[in-house]
Amino acid sequence: MSTKGSEETCQWQKQGAVHVSREGVVATVSLENTEKLNALSVWMWIELARVVHALSQDLTLRCVVLRGAGQSAFAAGADIAEFASVRQTREQGMIYHQEYVSGALKALAQCPHPVVAMIYGPCVGGGLELASQCDLRLAATSARFGVPINRLGFSIALDELTSVLPIVGETNLRELLLEGRVWDAAEAFDKGLVCKVVPDDQLAQVVSDCVRRIVEGAPLVARWHKKMIRRLSSPVKPIGEKDRQASFDYFDTQDFILGYEAFMKKQKPQFQGR
Amino acid sequence: MSTKGSEETCQWQKQGAVHVSREGVVATVSLENTEKLNALSVWMWIELARVVHALSQDLTLRCVVLRGAGQSAFAAGADIAEFASVRQTREQGMIYHQEYVSGALKALAQCPHPVVAMIYGPCVGGGLELASQCDLRLAATSARFGVPINRLGFSIALDELTSVLPIVGETNLRELLLEGRVWDAAEAFDKGLVCKVVPDDQLAQVVSDCVRRIVEGAPLVARWHKKMIRRLSSPVKPIGEKDRQASFDYFDTQDFILGYEAFMKKQKPQFQGR
Amino acid sequence: MSTKGSEETCQWQKQGAVHVSREGVVATVSLENTEKLNALSVWMWIELARVVHALSQDLTLRCVVLRGAGQSAFAAGADIAEFASVRQTREQGMIYHQEYVSGALKALAQCPHPVVAMIYGPCVGGGLELASQCDLRLAATSARFGVPINRLGFSIALDELTSVLPIVGETNLRELLLEGRVWDAAEAFDKGLVCKVVPDDQLAQVVSDCVRRIVEGAPLVARWHKKMIRRLSSPVKPIGEKDRQASFDYFDTQDFILGYEAFMKKQKPQFQGR
Repeated sequence: MSTKGSEETCQWQKQGAVHVSREGVVATVSLENTEKLNALSVWMWIELARVVHALSQDLTLRCVVLRGAGQSAFAAGADIAEFASVRQTREQGMIYHQEYVSGALKALAQCPHPVVAMIYGPCVGGGLELASQCDLRLAATSARFGVPINRLGFSIALDELTSVLPIVGETNLRELLLEGRVWDAAEAFDKGLVCKVVPDDQLAQVVSDCVRRIVEGAPLVARWHKKMIRRLSSPVKPIGEKDRQASFDYFDTQDFILGYEAFMKKQKPQFQGR
Repeated sequence: MSTKGSEETCQWQKQGAVHVSREGVVATVSLENTEKLNALSVWMWIELARVVHALSQDLTLRCVVLRGAGQSAFAAGADIAEFASVRQTREQGMIYHQEYVSGALKALAQCPHPVVAMIYGPCVGGGLELASQCDLRLAATSARFGVPINRLGFSIALDELTSVLPIVGETNLRELLLEGRVWDAAEAFDKGLVCKVVPDDQLAQVVSDCVRRIVEGAPLVARWHKKMIRRLSSPVKPIGEKDRQASFDYFDTQDFILGYEAFMKKQKPQFQGR
Repeated sequence: MSTKGSEETCQWQKQGAVHVSREGVVATVSLENTEKLNALSVWMWIELARVVHALSQDLTLRCVVLRGAGQSAFAAGADIAEFASVRQTREQGMIYHQEYVSGALKALAQCPHPVVAMIYGPCVGGGLELASQCDLRLAATSARFGVPINRLGFSIALDELTSVLPIVGETNLRELLLEGRVWDAAEAFDKGLVCKVVPDDQLAQVVSDCVRRIVEGAPLVARWHKKMIRRLSSPVKPIGEKDRQASFDYFDTQDFILGYEAFMKKQKPQFQGR
């Protein structure tokens, strides 16, 4: 089944799913893309934004848990196999990032409820961007973190960088983006990316304890705290359209095509710098 | 003995004390509220502001140490038993936070001398806010850190959040405020809240060594360094009266009353979200 | 050989050197001042700015490594022996810091290529300022970090503070500047100053692996990432001439002269606070 994207330029399939379950005052949102380590398809970005907006309206909730389906992965980045049809041109890329990805990131950032990320396995690229918009990040020993897009020949969208920079920190982002190395859970803890790391078989209990502490608190207080921190942390320098446009210059390069092709063929890309 | 507060709305007693001792170029300020783990009364907030302002005028000083009296606690937050008479209405709350608490925090932040926090035991709520306005934080293994006010049904005052945010950091504050969990000294060090953690019986020596290094330096240089860092770190986005007002909305909730009552009765509050 | 500085006020000698070697797409820049632990002379600051500007123009490069010559030191601060002739007056000091030091720091900060600092031994004062303008900092166990200028009777230049503050962090800078203590490599890692610490005999391999990961990435992507982070992190509050002037007030103090003399005589300075 095919659905037309914004302005009819972005053709995507309904791949993967975003599940919501609810137990009392706690909602759990699961990212699922079977056999792809929960890589995020366009459909999943759209669904996630929709789901989180709905939960944000429900003021009977006191906490949201965001996780990957199963215990193998949080989300292994974007579903890159889909790029050929949904993100090959600058026009598509702007819709993909500014509507789909940023739509979900902003929905999470603006969610009035505390959001806890529960992280097994890969939490990479768009997965790390999502986790960074949660309030707390609790990780299993198996968790892995990175933004290895220098291997793919494209740069991070400016709005995504703007979202993650105050949380991940400038020095961490320089290291993650320039080296493209994936960090294990211990390194992520040392560098402040996660609140806690525990053995995989203890993560469910640790998340449950954390959620319990959150829901035992006054829910309005939690919402005010989130609102105040957002207010104080909001960027003061307006980011213009020119800056935003510049973050998509990679669509005009050969390395962008080359990186994508190498990834699909499981080859090592030989970038040319043009 | 009762003294009238500003605009005659805030009735407080002279409970607790702030002591100052001096040895050479070093002043030590001790927070004392016996049998309450040095919890901070209105009188202590007022006294602390007064004392620090006086020390700030004394340019023969080279260093100030801020500590709790004894070796059991830095300061276990506000003296909550006092709230019934001094902080039950929005009008009282605004005076309490904007005059008394912020008065002491700003006095510390603007103190021209290096200020070292010496921390045994609980350093919680207002205690953590005070410690965060010091330049260095040296902790004993017994130290504990947190802002568990979600259990009390009220949110942090915006001016207090503004003071502590650049020091404690956004990710730490989200975790501390939303979960309300109290951290041990090792976790506080891992997350950058303190400069150093040592066994309790070594803290006096470690503070003494640190103070010696500070007073051996050129005092004007220390003052310039503090002044420059303040200048570069000052918030650029003016915070308006509306934002400030919104941080007191909790006075209009039932959970605020409920939280206070439960605390006084040593019961677990069952918050209602209204 | 003597060369006249800007406006003929700053007389410096060609002491020390900055070497550049190149292997494929990687340039290595070495700071060398033999027998002074690579302390940075005026000539070296000027040379470093010149060399980095040249490398910045060369878009065939993919990575730059900045290191001290040999394996004993990155750079042990400014070459203080030189101060008597090049940095004794306020006028000289402004040229020294705003032209020479800031010139090199800005050249590094604006270098479009990823820059990796490779750090053995002392990385102190101006050395730490240089390292902070690199994108990644990889350290040997022998590395040492500090800004012990409170012992020298002068404060950091405001433009240098502005450069290092967002990278080193406000809490770290307060501790480093006020205490003047030198940190070992483990403490520097704990406090986020360096990305990694390894035994001295493994640093060459670890840097080589890191550089390989960087050069295997798309070079334009690396440049865009650096450019975007710079754009988002640029200071929003304009720093005026008055602020800048105030950072040189130490030239009018006796402690400044005293600190310098004590350093040259290897005596402990007894500062007077005037």
